[in-house]
Amino acid sequence: MNCKPPPALRQGDTISLVAPASSPRPEQLAAAVAAIHAAGYRTKTYRDVCQSVDYLAGTDEERADELQQALADPETAAVFAVRGGYGVARLLDLLDYAALSEQPKIVAGYSDITALHAALMARCGWMAFHSPNAIDLAPEQGHGPSTESLWRLITRSAAPATLASADDWPAMRALVGGAARGPLVGGNLAVLMGLVATPYELATEGSVFFFEDTGEAPHRIDRLLAQLSLSGKLAQVAAVAVGHLSDTGEELGADRDAENAFGFPPIIERVLERYLAPLGVPVLVGLPVGHEAPNLALPQGAEVELDADAGRLVLVEPCVV
Amino acid sequence: MNCKPPPALRQGDTISLVAPASSPRPEQLAAAVAAIHAAGYRTKTYRDVCQSVDYLAGTDEERADELQQALADPETAAVFAVRGGYGVARLLDLLDYAALSEQPKIVAGYSDITALHAALMARCGWMAFHSPNAIDLAPEQGHGPSTESLWRLITRSAAPATLASADDWPAMRALVGGAARGPLVGGNLAVLMGLVATPYELATEGSVFFFEDTGEAPHRIDRLLAQLSLSGKLAQVAAVAVGHLSDTGEELGADRDAENAFGFPPIIERVLERYLAPLGVPVLVGLPVGHEAPNLALPQGAEVELDADAGRLVLVEPCVV
Repeated sequence: MNCKPPPALRQGDTISLVAPASSPRPEQLAAAVAAIHAAGYRTKTYRDVCQSVDYLAGTDEERADELQQALADPETAAVFAVRGGYGVARLLDLLDYAALSEQPKIVAGYSDITALHAALMARCGWMAFHSPNAIDLAPEQGHGPSTESLWRLITRSAAPATLASADDWPAMRALVGGAARGPLVGGNLAVLMGLVATPYELATEGSVFFFEDTGEAPHRIDRLLAQLSLSGKLAQVAAVAVGHLSDTGEELGADRDAENAFGFPPIIERVLERYLAPLGVPVLVGLPVGHEAPNLALPQGAEVELDADAGRLVLVEPCVV
Repeated sequence: MNCKPPPALRQGDTISLVAPASSPRPEQLAAAVAAIHAAGYRTKTYRDVCQSVDYLAGTDEERADELQQALADPETAAVFAVRGGYGVARLLDLLDYAALSEQPKIVAGYSDITALHAALMARCGWMAFHSPNAIDLAPEQGHGPSTESLWRLITRSAAPATLASADDWPAMRALVGGAARGPLVGGNLAVLMGLVATPYELATEGSVFFFEDTGEAPHRIDRLLAQLSLSGKLAQVAAVAVGHLSDTGEELGADRDAENAFGFPPIIERVLERYLAPLGVPVLVGLPVGHEAPNLALPQGAEVELDADAGRLVLVEPCVV
């Protein structure tokens, strides 16, 4: 699924801040706004995004309305999710995709924002940017390399460009060797699997598929990969890249403090091997993406090459124009 | 999806004990065997089911082989899961469904066993029995009414028969009033949603759909119902019955100790109302089924009538012959 690249972000452009999932604390929002201004961009909001309704940053109607406005707004060049959490899935049927421009806009974020990315790719053919959320951009959050990778990716149109490499991030290694090319698709595994059999599900055929997750115990990661496998979607991929699987919880037993060469507890590695090794495609683990630092920016829907042996993910076509 | 009823269990019949998911402790297994013998049945096992490989009761091949033997065994009248946990999804592609008889066998259990039930209904047209697992049958487990309901359901061919009623279980109440009829299908919600888009997914069209779960926080229940809704499967049901949603975890905040009239924390009730109230079909909550006592036995694939106003679920055709 190759998607259409949006126009590159230019100094002075406006970035809209939306909260389609959970709400930030006011000081987190203020720090995000300051960081974006310091980087040379304006910001725009459509409502007070710090309000909470249970675990959501407002009612479904309020969040959907804000998102629709931002995505359609000719005044803004990019839409950044303030934070993840939960709630984007509740909005997907409320958006008017037909009313959006065929000219894509940069839409950035991660975690629960995976659902928005999947919907915009599936329904509009827009590229999407898996990246730190806005509250992660403040320097005090310690996501310097991730923040820089986002600004670089959405402001320059160069390709080929290295998205992530073992030269910089030595944890990147082959679980299965080889190299392959395809459109990059993926995101948060639980969120992605929550969209299977809906109009927003990911097209994995021929793709370089990446995933990350947090707070999912080994048996839950196992269940998510089982569904991906039993549905036939896993057998269609051209390559796999596994990002951070953090906070895997209390089921690790004796494995809790052990780490193997890939940085995962052995029980997690056994789960990955059970599902990914038989595919016969290159599998790279240790992609510096997810709920730990670094969380480098990745352009979804753009053609990439994954070289598991070299520990490298390379963008082969421009993801902004 | 009306399924074919198996022959009724008769005194002296053999019950096979299998562990397709996680393993029991030896003393749990011994107590289960004693309880089944005391009820007047023989037991049969095919291997030592107390071994563990990570969170599984053996390798995938060992568990699949055991399950295939038990399901095909002419010496046994019923197959009881020793316990749930995790792991049935890993076996579904390893079973030879074509080799199983068109004559169904009683297959009982719950929690992760939902995946086995779904597969046998989808691939073989067998009825399936959502019920206590074998280790719950020991009297010291305190599941007397649930145990009795299982023995009653699989030994008598009478219908109509009350499966659950507010006369006995006052927590059964209408979230949405009305009455409807259809084949009963359901089980553990997370397990069911993990089978969507696979050859084992549940057919919900026209069904009386029931679900239960444990250890799923409100936002996780929300995500599971979102997928059920976005996939179109929720709009197809004739009625809904919600069982125990236990151990919903740490996200309850101020709601943690509050319970509404349905016995759920208010945040859970708001999630249920968001997805179930707009359906325009009867919705009953407080079904005494799931990871708390009682966990009454239910015949999946049999025609039932749900009367939300009266707080009653009635079997309208025999589920054993």
